[in-house]
Amino acid sequence: MNLTVAEIAALTGGRAEGGDGRTVTGVNPAGSAGPNDLSFIDSADKAGLLASCRAAAVLMPEDAAKAAAGSSGAARIYVKNPRYAFALVLRELEKDLAPPRRSGRHPSAVVAGSASVDPEAWIGPCCVVEDGASVGPRASLDANCFVGRGASVGEGSRLRPGVSLLDRCSVGRRCTIHSGTVIGSDGYGYVRSGGRHEKIPQLGAVRIDDDVEIGANCAIDRAALDMTVIGEGTKIDNLVHIAHNVKIGRNCLILAQAGSAGSTEIGDNVVIAGQSGLSDHLKIGSNSVVMGRTGVIADLAEGSIVLGPLGRPRREFMRIEATLSKLPEIYAEFKRLRKSREDEKKNP
Amino acid sequence: MNLTVAEIAALTGGRAEGGDGRTVTGVNPAGSAGPNDLSFIDSADKAGLLASCRAAAVLMPEDAAKAAAGSSGAARIYVKNPRYAFALVLRELEKDLAPPRRSGRHPSAVVAGSASVDPEAWIGPCCVVEDGASVGPRASLDANCFVGRGASVGEGSRLRPGVSLLDRCSVGRRCTIHSGTVIGSDGYGYVRSGGRHEKIPQLGAVRIDDDVEIGANCAIDRAALDMTVIGEGTKIDNLVHIAHNVKIGRNCLILAQAGSAGSTEIGDNVVIAGQSGLSDHLKIGSNSVVMGRTGVIADLAEGSIVLGPLGRPRREFMRIEATLSKLPEIYAEFKRLRKSREDEKKNP
Amino acid sequence: MNLTVAEIAALTGGRAEGGDGRTVTGVNPAGSAGPNDLSFIDSADKAGLLASCRAAAVLMPEDAAKAAAGSSGAARIYVKNPRYAFALVLRELEKDLAPPRRSGRHPSAVVAGSASVDPEAWIGPCCVVEDGASVGPRASLDANCFVGRGASVGEGSRLRPGVSLLDRCSVGRRCTIHSGTVIGSDGYGYVRSGGRHEKIPQLGAVRIDDDVEIGANCAIDRAALDMTVIGEGTKIDNLVHIAHNVKIGRNCLILAQAGSAGSTEIGDNVVIAGQSGLSDHLKIGSNSVVMGRTGVIADLAEGSIVLGPLGRPRREFMRIEATLSKLPEIYAEFKRLRKSREDEKKNP
Repeated sequence: MNLTVAEIAALTGGRAEGGDGRTVTGVNPAGSAGPNDLSFIDSADKAGLLASCRAAAVLMPEDAAKAAAGSSGAARIYVKNPRYAFALVLRELEKDLAPPRRSGRHPSAVVAGSASVDPEAWIGPCCVVEDGASVGPRASLDANCFVGRGASVGEGSRLRPGVSLLDRCSVGRRCTIHSGTVIGSDGYGYVRSGGRHEKIPQLGAVRIDDDVEIGANCAIDRAALDMTVIGEGTKIDNLVHIAHNVKIGRNCLILAQAGSAGSTEIGDNVVIAGQSGLSDHLKIGSNSVVMGRTGVIADLAEGSIVLGPLGRPRREFMRIEATLSKLPEIYAEFKRLRKSREDEKKNP
Repeated sequence: MNLTVAEIAALTGGRAEGGDGRTVTGVNPAGSAGPNDLSFIDSADKAGLLASCRAAAVLMPEDAAKAAAGSSGAARIYVKNPRYAFALVLRELEKDLAPPRRSGRHPSAVVAGSASVDPEAWIGPCCVVEDGASVGPRASLDANCFVGRGASVGEGSRLRPGVSLLDRCSVGRRCTIHSGTVIGSDGYGYVRSGGRHEKIPQLGAVRIDDDVEIGANCAIDRAALDMTVIGEGTKIDNLVHIAHNVKIGRNCLILAQAGSAGSTEIGDNVVIAGQSGLSDHLKIGSNSVVMGRTGVIADLAEGSIVLGPLGRPRREFMRIEATLSKLPEIYAEFKRLRKSREDEKKNP
Repeated sequence: MNLTVAEIAALTGGRAEGGDGRTVTGVNPAGSAGPNDLSFIDSADKAGLLASCRAAAVLMPEDAAKAAAGSSGAARIYVKNPRYAFALVLRELEKDLAPPRRSGRHPSAVVAGSASVDPEAWIGPCCVVEDGASVGPRASLDANCFVGRGASVGEGSRLRPGVSLLDRCSVGRRCTIHSGTVIGSDGYGYVRSGGRHEKIPQLGAVRIDDDVEIGANCAIDRAALDMTVIGEGTKIDNLVHIAHNVKIGRNCLILAQAGSAGSTEIGDNVVIAGQSGLSDHLKIGSNSVVMGRTGVIADLAEGSIVLGPLGRPRREFMRIEATLSKLPEIYAEFKRLRKSREDEKKNP
């Protein structure tokens, strides 16, 4: 990457001040930026970070101009959303790191004759693509991936090394599925009969919509009969479990090691923080936040914020937790009280 | 699938009423069934679902006959366990979806000369089978599987894409191991010496008994010296961790993201619900239920039902949780009480 | 394995007593040892185990000599740390079980021309090694591994089957990475813009230092810009999640299904027990212990011991938990109290 301040302003839709002709070759946070780096501050109250900042240029919101005045020799580039602008520049830098895009298939890949692979797609080494599968334009399968019978990978999507996309499951356009993730494992469905657990065949599939990203080593189960759905723009972190028939809406964030039991429906823009769990057959309203390590065992209205082992409203949980520390003290008082009452009874 | 009502009755051991000559080609829940579908209700009190049900035929228990009378034009098939009967029909439907069974080995598979592979077994593309391993009749290794030295896969078992079955570990008959699962990773054993953690070699193995199913991306560690055991008929969900030397009994259900630390022994018919954890060296009595997100830190007697961070009896936990909401109120009262006591002391 | 008592004493730096010329061929705990086995006791108060012990020889600390006197016919080998001595003997036994070390590459492996593979390294079947990657002396890639562009595996390290080591990430010397683990998946970084989550490219990498062991199916994310670091001698169990920019010190133990959110810094000799979680941007002091199933949401001073959903000091948590059982009783008293107060008000 080698961008002038003016080019960065153009790229980010910003307005440059100073640093004419200066060139940026790297990026770094304000604290560690070197003299050829671009950096950013989120808001005016972070302007203090600039005092010792050696960056060549800094992205900042317009309203930080005053606070930042004179604080460093860096060029300023005023933008609406500095973090997003920074991400845009990182995408330029990423191009330098990324290998050239490949198309075709590695000779070690095993692709069924009836699979439909776009000529612009790439099937990497030791990948297996089964009968009737389809891989769209500019889609890319890194090494050791599996795409099952009738499964499909949409335009521009990428499966990182070691992904298993099982029979009849689909991945939309511009998705990234990270290494080791399994899409379309059987839902966990059994019925007790004669003292044994008899399997209920899981005949549905998984539908991953456009612009979804799924982290490493996740497991997304296929539906029993219809579809497990991950909605457009939803981002899932590592080691997440999604059970059969779950429907997740658009633009949700599901953080690491969280899980949802079967048939739960999650609205749009929901955040499920790390290591949380949702019981089965729930409805989680849009714009809700399930905080970290929370267990949810009942439906949540839109915009809920819940926390704790039983998914209480956050304020209630925090109030209880604050009082818990007093509990031993309260109990001591309770024992004194009970004793004095008993003494009164004896000697009234 | 194309089954007459009479054929379904025969398949499920049921008694048909109406719908002579009618043919069923699909399956669906009562709410979404179409006119060529089979559906089911579990019990008489679900008979209301039939009012708007368009299914061609419905499986139901004998005692639902009265409640269901006249509620829809569907043929009835009376069976003892409608859900199990439904599963039996799904197994017919599954045959249509499944690819024809293959035998032999894909040319890209790497099979050691000393491995014993039954002629009716299938070794899929990019699989690796090491020295002295054995793969039994009609067993099937999907793509990208690894079977280590001296490991064995029993008759009719299936490893889904990307399973690693490591050295000397065995999978019984009619098992399914889902994608990405690792069987026989080293147990987590170290001894502190000279300020470092020195590895204790893990020389045992894992024994998976017959009719076990294990979900995606699980990790089952090999024993230090003898065997980690998963008993017959036990079903394990996704992302489960089983540490070294654990012994799990028969017909247990271990749900997603649960885990057990080392050497714990679990009886028969135990349910460990999602995201729960068992400490090491415990004994969990048969027929116990560890509810969701529970931590178990002590032995459980047979038939226990426990819940919460410290695995309390469920009733006790629920009683405490119910009272927790009152805690801030109790604390306020406690402070009033203390103040009035102090006032009394000052002005007796 | 076939070792005389004298040879074991030499191997473990111990002092033998009795059993001259006796030969040991196996190892087992005191309770199950047979007449050709070596066993051990940790401390003098375990000497009771020897009464029924059939082992040929027993490792024990010097101060157990008196307690053990006359308790069994086993030869004694007095050592400083019996468990460590036992591990040393297990390493001898392990050599019998291990396959002969291989070097070179399996013909099915796909190794880029620009990759640097030491002639003493082994690249197993169906492995993929990309451009500019390096694999050091006596390093070993088992089957189905992926080593990305510019990634490196240090001297004597081993990747078990199905590991993905992604671009530019490094594994130090004498490390073991267990099956299915992913090193270098993208950090979970997005910025909200226009109602969507826009990806922040993750351009850093992961650095695994020497003598690290990582369990099965873990996910270690690459840093956004610099390095996620796993310090020397740290041991990680199965299904652990390490987010971007986390720095873990030396000789830590991170147990199964634990996780850390982004940018948290963990000191040396820290223990994070199973299913625990650390919030982002924390500092965890050296020698701290996060007990099982604990959530940590604030910095921890050196040597902290914390427990419970909010990571309270262990003593405090246990005191609260003990009192919790009394809570329903306290609440009943509280209601009586409130009622009597109201009665007094009515009838003063």
